[in-house]
Amino acid sequence: MTFIAKFSAAAAANRSQLCVGLDPDPARFPAHLRSKADAIVQFCKGIIDATADTACAFKPQIAYFAALRAEEQLEEICNYLRANYPAIPIVLDAKRGDIGATAEQYAREAFERYGADAVTVNPYMGFDSVQPYLEWKDRGAIILCRTSNAGGSDLQFLNVDGKPLYQHVAQLVADKWNTNGQCGLVVGATFPNELAQVRAIVGDMPLLIPGIGAQGGDIEATVKAGRTAAGGGMMINSSRAILYAKTDEEKGEDFAQAARRVAQETRDAINLYRN
Amino acid sequence: MTFIAKFSAAAAANRSQLCVGLDPDPARFPAHLRSKADAIVQFCKGIIDATADTACAFKPQIAYFAALRAEEQLEEICNYLRANYPAIPIVLDAKRGDIGATAEQYAREAFERYGADAVTVNPYMGFDSVQPYLEWKDRGAIILCRTSNAGGSDLQFLNVDGKPLYQHVAQLVADKWNTNGQCGLVVGATFPNELAQVRAIVGDMPLLIPGIGAQGGDIEATVKAGRTAAGGGMMINSSRAILYAKTDEEKGEDFAQAARRVAQETRDAINLYRN
Repeated sequence: MTFIAKFSAAAAANRSQLCVGLDPDPARFPAHLRSKADAIVQFCKGIIDATADTACAFKPQIAYFAALRAEEQLEEICNYLRANYPAIPIVLDAKRGDIGATAEQYAREAFERYGADAVTVNPYMGFDSVQPYLEWKDRGAIILCRTSNAGGSDLQFLNVDGKPLYQHVAQLVADKWNTNGQCGLVVGATFPNELAQVRAIVGDMPLLIPGIGAQGGDIEATVKAGRTAAGGGMMINSSRAILYAKTDEEKGEDFAQAARRVAQETRDAINLYRN
Repeated sequence: MTFIAKFSAAAAANRSQLCVGLDPDPARFPAHLRSKADAIVQFCKGIIDATADTACAFKPQIAYFAALRAEEQLEEICNYLRANYPAIPIVLDAKRGDIGATAEQYAREAFERYGADAVTVNPYMGFDSVQPYLEWKDRGAIILCRTSNAGGSDLQFLNVDGKPLYQHVAQLVADKWNTNGQCGLVVGATFPNELAQVRAIVGDMPLLIPGIGAQGGDIEATVKAGRTAAGGGMMINSSRAILYAKTDEEKGEDFAQAARRVAQETRDAINLYRN
């Protein structure tokens, strides 16, 4: 099964366009977990078990693991996902970008070592820096297009022949790079107009949309701008708002129950505006 | 000491503008090393000991380690470099690019975990994706500008207000991002004219220049295009041509001696054209 088919099936089964981001920050873990040697694994497994039926994808952010010397824990988490929730795709958020021979190594890292279904990739070095990922025919490459950070405009909004650079990237991927239906694009939620312009360029291509929740993007505007004609095609990511949800102490919620509540609310809020 | 000062001192001490890239590929190791559990560490230590007095920097490419689950070996190699050759800067070639909170994690990975002096960074997400590295005042960020791969032109050569995108990146870094003299640029050797145009834009800023050796860039043209007025400012990288140098069997050379010979020849060839 291709990455795109796996994403579509998970989205349909869970009625969800919500991607749950896994950005483990031990300083924000519940106190009873913090002292444990395998705190990262325990925390992520708790989040995964609590939210798997609300999600169309999980997105581990590799930087959080790399800073903590926790690559083995990331392997364990990916193994756990594949063993227990094989229908939910894993998107490794690594934003790799390097030339061919080196990109082959990064593809092995993402797809062989971690068993990810897709990986985020930076377009600055061009098609031959993306192509090695596409050699893995059942996997996907989700290419940065328009990012939700303040500095995103520094390059992405430069005027290229009358259009901003990010629209050229969307067009390039749609017309030339997506030769086998394996590509998606990263487009932030903070600029709904621009999200709508990308959707108009790329048809039904899946969009990974960060920037709701802690980053402040509005769900209604995001969904109306990002949906396909069929009301789908989005992996709307939320990480910190779910992982570190404020628990309802009167109800005796633990971190995983709180995460589940916020994930369900977010999934449902997205679904309100899909059609 | 800042990264730039450390680079300049190493370049002067070793009369070298040669950066030795560490891209370990066990399939290309000498037969007697291949079966050893710590083959990567032994191979890299052999290369380092043989070439340290010919180099102005070492550049480990993290993808090769990540694909092999060899982050601990990379730590050991960086520790070895700092302990034995503290005057030679370590440039971690990671080409990271992500938003602020995530970039902080990647900066910790590069500078705290691996103890690198500088890291390569992708500019596509803008200044706030670079700024977290610059918080480490004695370290450097070397930003992708014009890359040596065939697909490099896909984005970097797009016409932005009459100039190619890579020149805008060079100008942005020189004028705005390099607030504290911590930045360098990656500019490939395969297009000497473009290298000269970047040099004209950025003054004495250090340039990391891949693309000679296995990638085919011409040394004379590269040096004449990339040198500063004082004949320096370059980290001209060679990886595979040094690491996997053909040994002279009549002389009974081993891989490290062959690497040393090619590194010296390359360093000397660069020096021929510096002034």
